[in-house]
Amino acid sequence: MKRTTYAGLIDESYLGQSVTLAGWVQKRRNFGDLIFIDLRDREGIVQLTFNATNAESLKVADEMRNEYVVSITGEVVKRKESQINDKIKSGTVEIDVVSAKILSQSKTPPFYIEDDVNANEELKLQYRYLDLRRPEMQKNLRIRSKIMSSASHFMDNNDFINVETPILAKSTPEGARDYLVPSRIFPGSFYALPQSPQLFKQLLMGAGFDRYFQIARAFRDEDLRGDRQPEFTQMDVEMSFMSADEIRALVNEWVKAMMKDVVAFDLDTKKIPTLTWQESMDRFGTDKPDLRIAYEIHDLSDLMKQSEFGVFSKAVQDGGVVKAIAIPGGAAHYSRKDIDKLAQYIERFGAKGLAWLKVTEEGVSGPIAKFFPEPSQLVKAAGAHVGDLLLFGAGRNDVVSATLDYLRRQTAQDLNLVNQTNPWAFAWIVDWPLFEYSEDFDRWIAAHHPFTMPNEEDLHYLDEGEDPHQAHAQSYDLVLNGYELGSGSIRIHSMAIQEKMLKALGFTPEKAHEAFGFLLEGMSYGFPPMGGIALGLDRLAMLLAGQENIREVIAFPKNSRATEPMTEAPTRVDGKQLNDLGLFVPESD
Amino acid sequence: MKRTTYAGLIDESYLGQSVTLAGWVQKRRNFGDLIFIDLRDREGIVQLTFNATNAESLKVADEMRNEYVVSITGEVVKRKESQINDKIKSGTVEIDVVSAKILSQSKTPPFYIEDDVNANEELKLQYRYLDLRRPEMQKNLRIRSKIMSSASHFMDNNDFINVETPILAKSTPEGARDYLVPSRIFPGSFYALPQSPQLFKQLLMGAGFDRYFQIARAFRDEDLRGDRQPEFTQMDVEMSFMSADEIRALVNEWVKAMMKDVVAFDLDTKKIPTLTWQESMDRFGTDKPDLRIAYEIHDLSDLMKQSEFGVFSKAVQDGGVVKAIAIPGGAAHYSRKDIDKLAQYIERFGAKGLAWLKVTEEGVSGPIAKFFPEPSQLVKAAGAHVGDLLLFGAGRNDVVSATLDYLRRQTAQDLNLVNQTNPWAFAWIVDWPLFEYSEDFDRWIAAHHPFTMPNEEDLHYLDEGEDPHQAHAQSYDLVLNGYELGSGSIRIHSMAIQEKMLKALGFTPEKAHEAFGFLLEGMSYGFPPMGGIALGLDRLAMLLAGQENIREVIAFPKNSRATEPMTEAPTRVDGKQLNDLGLFVPESD
Repeated sequence: MKRTTYAGLIDESYLGQSVTLAGWVQKRRNFGDLIFIDLRDREGIVQLTFNATNAESLKVADEMRNEYVVSITGEVVKRKESQINDKIKSGTVEIDVVSAKILSQSKTPPFYIEDDVNANEELKLQYRYLDLRRPEMQKNLRIRSKIMSSASHFMDNNDFINVETPILAKSTPEGARDYLVPSRIFPGSFYALPQSPQLFKQLLMGAGFDRYFQIARAFRDEDLRGDRQPEFTQMDVEMSFMSADEIRALVNEWVKAMMKDVVAFDLDTKKIPTLTWQESMDRFGTDKPDLRIAYEIHDLSDLMKQSEFGVFSKAVQDGGVVKAIAIPGGAAHYSRKDIDKLAQYIERFGAKGLAWLKVTEEGVSGPIAKFFPEPSQLVKAAGAHVGDLLLFGAGRNDVVSATLDYLRRQTAQDLNLVNQTNPWAFAWIVDWPLFEYSEDFDRWIAAHHPFTMPNEEDLHYLDEGEDPHQAHAQSYDLVLNGYELGSGSIRIHSMAIQEKMLKALGFTPEKAHEAFGFLLEGMSYGFPPMGGIALGLDRLAMLLAGQENIREVIAFPKNSRATEPMTEAPTRVDGKQLNDLGLFVPESD
Repeated sequence: MKRTTYAGLIDESYLGQSVTLAGWVQKRRNFGDLIFIDLRDREGIVQLTFNATNAESLKVADEMRNEYVVSITGEVVKRKESQINDKIKSGTVEIDVVSAKILSQSKTPPFYIEDDVNANEELKLQYRYLDLRRPEMQKNLRIRSKIMSSASHFMDNNDFINVETPILAKSTPEGARDYLVPSRIFPGSFYALPQSPQLFKQLLMGAGFDRYFQIARAFRDEDLRGDRQPEFTQMDVEMSFMSADEIRALVNEWVKAMMKDVVAFDLDTKKIPTLTWQESMDRFGTDKPDLRIAYEIHDLSDLMKQSEFGVFSKAVQDGGVVKAIAIPGGAAHYSRKDIDKLAQYIERFGAKGLAWLKVTEEGVSGPIAKFFPEPSQLVKAAGAHVGDLLLFGAGRNDVVSATLDYLRRQTAQDLNLVNQTNPWAFAWIVDWPLFEYSEDFDRWIAAHHPFTMPNEEDLHYLDEGEDPHQAHAQSYDLVLNGYELGSGSIRIHSMAIQEKMLKALGFTPEKAHEAFGFLLEGMSYGFPPMGGIALGLDRLAMLLAGQENIREVIAFPKNSRATEPMTEAPTRVDGKQLNDLGLFVPESD
């Protein structure tokens, strides 16, 4: 019995035809000599009917249980009026089954195979092959697949060469913690799984490939958050002899094709704004602004320098800032208690309280309203209108930015102010600082990575006696709906500049050559100007599938302990395997 | 100066146009006030001319050296008759340069960037970015890229879903040695890099994806041979509800599309032969026959049972075989000394000598001719003709097969008898034994892998009290020009059969569930019938690029010590990194 089509594709165009289908039993209902089976395959569901006319098939149907795998042949007929189900494609038809066969039985699954199933996350990961049967998971992974095929197609049409770079690579300093792989041939030596193909793709440009593309796996042994996994996928490109503008224009075309192929959205790339990093920080308090939200941050520092309200005036006089957002219609929506909750939440950013005002016909109201008897200038400067809620941040600029960024996104969600007229708000963030201060490492690190080209007019900052941290970079991030989709830059292709850059990061010449000697050496043999970008596939798939966690778009993800509950990896291994590697593992966990 | 096209694309259609190019200096020749530069980019070479008309450019050109990166603008003009070079696309034109700029300087490279360069292999790997600049390496990696884009396209058109499976996976017994990755969160536990996505793709079929595709990286920590690398790439597919015949038909279409896209060859899939494993062994002595060679192995055992030549008759009487190949025209080509060399070589297969005869007008000649005074029956049975060289194998069948397989391929190469009329000889090898005896492990192992479905009529061999090693499998290998391109099979989808299979491999029930519990458990929840195949991308690219070593089609390969000479991976790592992982490395190498 060769399958002729998918269950989920059956509709009235098949009426009168004999079809052979194969799939899973979603549901069985018995009515004496009449049995209905909902048959599920990857395309959807169709209703099978078994009756006494085909006694043998009826008997087979009676043995069918949920999640049995079956194959049937039958005729597509109209459903009775009372049976019509307009929620599914096949809702007006059903299959009058002539013959049926059970191909595989199933125990009762630990949870129902349906989208709104309320099962424990860990249990669902343990039985991932069952969880993946849900229509939503099927859709999510197909969206991910479509993003990849769209990218392959686009890159192929634009003369990119798909080159695979090593997974067994070299451990390098800078960046996150490496996953290591012990060498058997050289006991005590290790490969590292790559955190990105960055150096390899630069070497490919050095090798003259001109346009490189790869859908590449990358690895970071970091503590996991909701949107992080130990392994993740980048759609990675690099080009020679192109300016940052030209590269962004090409990426725009790529993204346009992708939005069309994957979600049938006609993206107008001319409307993708380009903001400098500084502008993004000033207007949105973040380097990945969600531009679906209309309201922005307003700087009121000058206005508040002499404010009656001591918290504000002191903040400015101490070298800090006072900034605010005006939430449209927020006055009626937020009670004092609601605002207290927000105030509590923002303590994690270092904020020591949340000043607020409601804008009324008469002026402003709220506990600190008394300090603003003539609020019209303030209201205007904050871009507020009657009925708005004004939320303030006062103090250190970075704390105020983080606070107001959060408040902007949270309030927009609370009030349904995430603009539905532009569901896909892309933006380019450019002109990043070359370095940023890392609290974790307690030193300056590269804001992107150590191979990012400084702006030409900033090159002198890397010279002896100057402050390298003043330099900005030829880097550009692509942002979508408040998420960083990809990070790109023009790269350093000169050994002299690369050496200065590593020095500014604290490398001695010896350390620099030990870690990156092959790259520095390469640059002395004629490397071309180059740049590129990597788009995060997991996050992109998550956004296009309308999900909130990347686990929903990964077939076999790890949990928050970096464990895969189905196979139980990582596991203990044979002592012999460790001996072969010259490893000794203390019995310590 | 924005580049307008590639150097290698310039031809007479550009005559009179102004173009801007960027690339590498292949060669500089000075003739006083006239300088010629061969400019190379990924598409090829064009000649630049600099003269006194543009004094400034001439000065820049005078500074150019081999492998400098330069950008120029100029007019495409005809070359002088005497200057025409018909070896390159741009050979009748040149660029009259108006302006030029040096973008990057280069030291003198350690070897010339040209295809017939005679540099040490290790040096070439150390400066891989230079070696990759050679036109041949550029071509090789583009062929590899084309194979991938062709596959993506085909799979997309055939409704396959591209799903990425984990690289950080679980260590499982059977198969080769795993690469391990220590877990930081669970010290003493390890991930394993997958030897193939086999189990994950079966689970995806269990999850109902129906058609899966992935270009997947796989890893084996084995000793390296010429065509092996620690990491390699598989083009991996799996399908539900399809028979082996249907799967092979689909793979034929895939391969047909690939041959067209990559090497513009029109493959007639109807002419791809399907041989049983037994037939392949009998006719060619191998399970991966090179069908470009016309002559085959002939079994002369019956004929030789009573031979006057004791070596032959004894071999048969002892339960062995006597087989031969007849090499067309071989009599004149091979001297006694040549044959002695072949005899010496085949000792590695266990052969204890090489009996041979030359077929003459009169009969046969050679040292053992005296035993065959009436050779006509022998000559006929061996398919020989006047002028042929007959080479014999006598003894254990496996030794004879290995010997004659080698001799067939070697002699065909020596005499140019690899058939040029069919450059791409594909074949399917089917009906494999389910098990094979491993000399390495000194026990029976799965001939393909432990998840291969036995032939239906052979299932009983897995039952208590029967001999499982009699069973044959629903497996099929795709062979091209004597190389195994891919290995596929119908998989076991029933827990009961899978448990029997593991038992036959020596697993106790406890061990079976420890290693493969998640799969066995999965099979009890309704797994569909399924099958698939994986084609080896490295080997395929090697063959289509006309190379003899897979290193030539891998951007950054490892050497025979599994080291990558450019980055020097694997390396020593920080003690802190090892501490984080709870590892202790004795100072032992």
